[in-house]
Amino acid sequence: MDERLKKQLDFLLEIDKSKEIIRQTYLSDGSRKENDAEHSWHLAVMAILLSEYSKEEIDVLKTVSMVLIHDLVEIDAGDTYAYDTEGNKTKHERELKAADRIFNLLPEDQAGKMRALWEEFERGDSPEARFAAALDKTQPVILTDKQGGKSWIEHGVKKSQISKRTEHVRDGAEVLSHFVEEAIERNVSKGLLLDE
Amino acid sequence: MDERLKKQLDFLLEIDKSKEIIRQTYLSDGSRKENDAEHSWHLAVMAILLSEYSKEEIDVLKTVSMVLIHDLVEIDAGDTYAYDTEGNKTKHERELKAADRIFNLLPEDQAGKMRALWEEFERGDSPEARFAAALDKTQPVILTDKQGGKSWIEHGVKKSQISKRTEHVRDGAEVLSHFVEEAIERNVSKGLLLDE
Repeated sequence: MDERLKKQLDFLLEIDKSKEIIRQTYLSDGSRKENDAEHSWHLAVMAILLSEYSKEEIDVLKTVSMVLIHDLVEIDAGDTYAYDTEGNKTKHERELKAADRIFNLLPEDQAGKMRALWEEFERGDSPEARFAAALDKTQPVILTDKQGGKSWIEHGVKKSQISKRTEHVRDGAEVLSHFVEEAIERNVSKGLLLDE
Repeated sequence: MDERLKKQLDFLLEIDKSKEIIRQTYLSDGSRKENDAEHSWHLAVMAILLSEYSKEEIDVLKTVSMVLIHDLVEIDAGDTYAYDTEGNKTKHERELKAADRIFNLLPEDQAGKMRALWEEFERGDSPEARFAAALDKTQPVILTDKQGGKSWIEHGVKKSQISKRTEHVRDGAEVLSHFVEEAIERNVSKGLLLDE
């Protein structure tokens, strides 16, 4: 087999492991937690259907590509829960090492492109990265709000924590930040998010 | 909340159910079967990384959009295994009914667009649909070949069946059809696919 195709197929097989990286967010029916591949698929559909709400003009394909690969580093680095203070101290270092290994399975040109896309998402310094981050922070709220707050209750999440976690949604999509703020208030009043 | 956004969020919550539609293909480590959301995510990454192999020039965003939504109808219609003769007799009718319900959760303009994209995929009569179909037929072969043929053995799949199932891969991407043919031969010689 051609060396280039072999590298691409090796990469595609390696990222199959994303289907086993479990996040803290439950499916909207609460039956189980979702994994990175499912989460990334959901974000990609959102990027297409909600692009009209992006605060800045975006390249939709670039945004979709970004959300599809944004969590691949977790194959090595694991999912670090948003409200895990200790884990978040070493997160960046673990993820950089993972990016070195995983993206480099691809042919050099594609490795460079995918790595750059991931780094742009991490830095959050482009319209696409800001919109992708808004989707990434909004999607768990959509699911958890519908589901009844299970992951918030399990982890004793405070209003101040989720407000901080989602504060940049407005930089990507104002409309989504209104949805998130309203959902936070509603869930605080139901007692599903702690108001200290 | 704005009526348009409400419809979009209702659709995004409805399609969360794709994460629970189980296919017959196992993950590459054989631990469990994959679901529609995971499969669609994998195809979307493939569409981006393998677009260079498309036989005809394609709009990559259109192809990615197509594969992301191509299985949504299975939320109502269920996954019909490729080699289930009885199930395949009623598949189209069940899926049409599902498309009527699911896509129409969206605002009218987006419902029309997504429905048209799904229909184009089903008809297979555009460069994007042909390439998307090639990916859709190749991805289970990549996983099952790596995994050791579990789903082929479980269902007693014959070489003639999988050859027929994948015969149109070459219409979308010649390079992928060579990979598929080689994988079929290799697995026949290992006894994982039945050569009658």
